[in-house]
Amino acid sequence: MAPVKNGRHLFNEIPKGFPEPGKTTVYDESETIDLEKAPLNGGFLVKTLVLSIDPYMRGRMRDASIKSYAPPFYIGKPLDNFGVGKVLRSENPAFKAGDHVYGMLPFQEYFVAQDAQQFRLLENKEGLPWSAYVGVCGMPGQTAYYAWKEWSAAKKGEVAFVTSASGPVGATVVQLAKGDGCKVIASAGSDDKVAFVKTVGADVAFNYKTEDTRKVLEKEGPIDIFWDNVGGETLEAAIEAANVHGRFIECGMISQYNTSDPYPVKNLIQIVGKQLKIHGFIVFSMHDKYQDEFYREVPRRVAAGEIKYQEDITRGLDKVSEAILDVQTGKNQGKKVIVVADD
Amino acid sequence: MAPVKNGRHLFNEIPKGFPEPGKTTVYDESETIDLEKAPLNGGFLVKTLVLSIDPYMRGRMRDASIKSYAPPFYIGKPLDNFGVGKVLRSENPAFKAGDHVYGMLPFQEYFVAQDAQQFRLLENKEGLPWSAYVGVCGMPGQTAYYAWKEWSAAKKGEVAFVTSASGPVGATVVQLAKGDGCKVIASAGSDDKVAFVKTVGADVAFNYKTEDTRKVLEKEGPIDIFWDNVGGETLEAAIEAANVHGRFIECGMISQYNTSDPYPVKNLIQIVGKQLKIHGFIVFSMHDKYQDEFYREVPRRVAAGEIKYQEDITRGLDKVSEAILDVQTGKNQGKKVIVVADD
Repeated sequence: MAPVKNGRHLFNEIPKGFPEPGKTTVYDESETIDLEKAPLNGGFLVKTLVLSIDPYMRGRMRDASIKSYAPPFYIGKPLDNFGVGKVLRSENPAFKAGDHVYGMLPFQEYFVAQDAQQFRLLENKEGLPWSAYVGVCGMPGQTAYYAWKEWSAAKKGEVAFVTSASGPVGATVVQLAKGDGCKVIASAGSDDKVAFVKTVGADVAFNYKTEDTRKVLEKEGPIDIFWDNVGGETLEAAIEAANVHGRFIECGMISQYNTSDPYPVKNLIQIVGKQLKIHGFIVFSMHDKYQDEFYREVPRRVAAGEIKYQEDITRGLDKVSEAILDVQTGKNQGKKVIVVADD
Repeated sequence: MAPVKNGRHLFNEIPKGFPEPGKTTVYDESETIDLEKAPLNGGFLVKTLVLSIDPYMRGRMRDASIKSYAPPFYIGKPLDNFGVGKVLRSENPAFKAGDHVYGMLPFQEYFVAQDAQQFRLLENKEGLPWSAYVGVCGMPGQTAYYAWKEWSAAKKGEVAFVTSASGPVGATVVQLAKGDGCKVIASAGSDDKVAFVKTVGADVAFNYKTEDTRKVLEKEGPIDIFWDNVGGETLEAAIEAANVHGRFIECGMISQYNTSDPYPVKNLIQIVGKQLKIHGFIVFSMHDKYQDEFYREVPRRVAAGEIKYQEDITRGLDKVSEAILDVQTGKNQGKKVIVVADD
């Protein structure tokens, strides 16, 4: 069989503010691969099916010399992120042709992997779409599930405020909070998103672009639990509206990712008087504790319709640049996924 | 016996910035008391021996309608704070004449108390000076002890940064941190204070007014545990210098108490990436858990010289105004105590 095109999406340039499609990252079709003859050297050949586009990817678009919790992208190399692939050929006993694997995939159509430990076999007995395994049943879902379990200390009747509540993390948190008997206040950046957030059970959902977060919290709070995906001014508003002994779960701060002039928070003194607990975290460091429980529970509950989710799917590896920008600006409607190929 | 003068120190006016001696609070000698005949109505007559002057008192100098963790001072009424008194007469079986009691005392020479539950009997088998019971063996010592036990999660070889390290809280924390095998970086506001902090075991002690905190932390950090008595710019520097999984113990923010223009902290995004845990607290809410252990352990260790402390004693209830300002501006050398009368 003749070699086939092996499209890739490459990191091209470190952005200053928002990433620019076709400049920060670029699509490349210069490589080919012979799917039958490409040497495996003890590894396995994977066909990429779906790739996840996540807010945290902005932090990886940095000078490679700067340390951070997630490795940088390297200029001229393919991006990589969570994805699901199908094994086409294998010399590794861990996986056989036809298996589906979850892990960090390079943004290219086909690749040969060596380290089986970097991938998880997805059995998918529930028959969920593979895209679900990079969203509600993947890293974003884990993010919500692990940290809520670890730090919310939710009690029935408490008030939780969830930001970016229509995204795969936020929407899952809304449902976990409801499940624990909380009153849930949820914010999102468009009326459509707000409508979705209401369908997953938020008691109060509002568009933060047209309603004043401080006023909503003043009316509906005080808040006992704050799920922060936003940072900046929203964090300041949440501190202002926090109840005594409030718990803040600091998952992300997307309002601060694309600016060189961070929002100056002026009310931190309330951390003392209100006895707030603020928990910054990265999902990776909690895998060992919660991963097995997560995979036992969440796909089953998603398949049963107990946990709802929303996806914003784009087809084509060439569309990655725009997808990344959409996620940074909040234009996506739910979990942003690139479908690279069909199963 | 004829009535005697019963001097009082009154709250007179809500300050805007720093409290002003003779204006914010005033000394008053208009009242008298007959120590033999004053009716007890089932209570007990106390002679005030020592009174504590603490940073948090600034927060009580507010409009009484504003809620906060500690009750406000009331205009025209005596201040009150932790102190030690001696029971002169009693109709309450909980205390007898000659007993020493610890609790919230009004800033006046003599008073009749009704509620025995508000006071703790001090046996003082170790024969410590009564002033120690408002410092290292009182609320400031408890503050250090409780929160260090609860949140430091200190491991041998970790780096702790302690601010206001010559004060009764800070100096105790330095010693607890050393006891747990930490390298201790300590800051204070004068060379004399720095010298004292070194005597209690700090590995690196510096005068933050003459040395740049950021530079010291850059050289001696990263820091695993931050004991914050200061807030503002120092908190920002500590976030900058924090190690991954750093624990921040937010005890107070004296740099922010006397300003209407709080310092704008711009690097909170690092809370996520570094997975910081920030614990605001008020000592009162931890009494039930740690109080008995504290009184069993700390006075004994202080008497044995294992825990060192420094006091800055002023004699006379009329000197309270200046003492309060000294504590707010950091002019005190160690725990500020007013000795009202001898035992």
